Amino acid sequence: MQISVIPLGTISSYADFVADFQKVLAESNLSFTLTDMATIVEGDTAELLAIAAKIHEIPYGRGVQRILTSITIDDRRDKIVHLGDKIQAVKNKLT
Amino acid sequence: MQISVIPLGTISSYADFVADFQKVLAESNLSFTLTDMATIVEGDTAELLAIAAKIHEIPYGRGVQRILTSITIDDRRDKIVHLGDKIQAVKNKLT
Amino acid sequence: MQISVIPLGTISSYADFVADFQKVLAESNLSFTLTDMATIVEGDTAELLAIAAKIHEIPYGRGVQRILTSITIDDRRDKIVHLGDKIQAVKNKLT
Amino acid sequence: MQISVIPLGTISSYADFVADFQKVLAESNLSFTLTDMATIVEGDTAELLAIAAKIHEIPYGRGVQRILTSITIDDRRDKIVHLGDKIQAVKNKLT
Repeated sequence: MQISVIPLGTISSYADFVADFQKVLAESNLSFTLTDMATIVEGDTAELLAIAAKIHEIPYGRGVQRILTSITIDDRRDKIVHLGDKIQAVKNKLT
Repeated sequence: MQISVIPLGTISSYADFVADFQKVLAESNLSFTLTDMATIVEGDTAELLAIAAKIHEIPYGRGVQRILTSITIDDRRDKIVHLGDKIQAVKNKLT
Repeated sequence: MQISVIPLGTISSYADFVADFQKVLAESNLSFTLTDMATIVEGDTAELLAIAAKIHEIPYGRGVQRILTSITIDDRRDKIVHLGDKIQAVKNKLT
Repeated sequence: MQISVIPLGTISSYADFVADFQKVLAESNLSFTLTDMATIVEGDTAELLAIAAKIHEIPYGRGVQRILTSITIDDRRDKIVHLGDKIQAVKNKLT
């Protein structure tokens, strides 16, 4: 799952919010990685939506009134794929 | 919440899947509207993520092995906004 | 193409910006429709990316310093599809 | 800019397509990085939309008839930000 949570109407640093998200993810048992545009988390769909709900709430605790959360779930049931596997599959094609 | 659920690696008609989603939404108590690119559903965040999880599962029941689901939640806590309100606000600016 | 252009770090009304986008689209020859979450525009890929570039610039003219633009292009080359056709195809499945 | 280009209705390996995109990006002068969910490219808006148009066309050359391309542009004009800077800013908050 890729997730980005954008507080709107605030001039606070986004890095503060994203750091909060990383702390919550670090306390979960899920693997995750931060990119320049979003956070990617590995897990089954129920776990992913549960952690998404939790992350989405964080900025409200900092006084934000409106949040735009974008989630993309790439969910395949024919094989197990871990974080990094898709990047590796592409690299294998390139060499 | 805007949601689009795309089954990958299938040549079935997407309209069949989208029709299934509309049936599940019609059985919920949530307001929703279908656009050319996605479905927009009104509700609180917990309800929206629950219905998203349900819709996301539908194509697996039809033999699909991989699904790409995109969700965008525009969640404001400073006022109540219903489906159609944002379109109306823009129209008011234009007249 | 679905497009949403979100000015960040501003407390201005988003409806003002969206109204500006609708005016620019109305001056183009492209068909478009406004939803509660985005604007959907019909055209070939080159036209769509050109109008996206134009809309993306608008909020800078109003003093905004950071803009997050999301674009989704559903581009099929096997048949001509117009705005409203996909909604109609789903409705046909439902009746 | 984050971009993902998804060929629909094909059972080909997505890694093949993504490898093609990386080759085209490598021939450009733009910095880019591959994540598990998308490719992130650095540049000004005009350059980014031009390369997006080029990448979007690739799968048609491989016989695909329908492509879903998602683009997110995070464009700030108040300061120069390079690939990796946003990740670093978050890491600085965490330590």
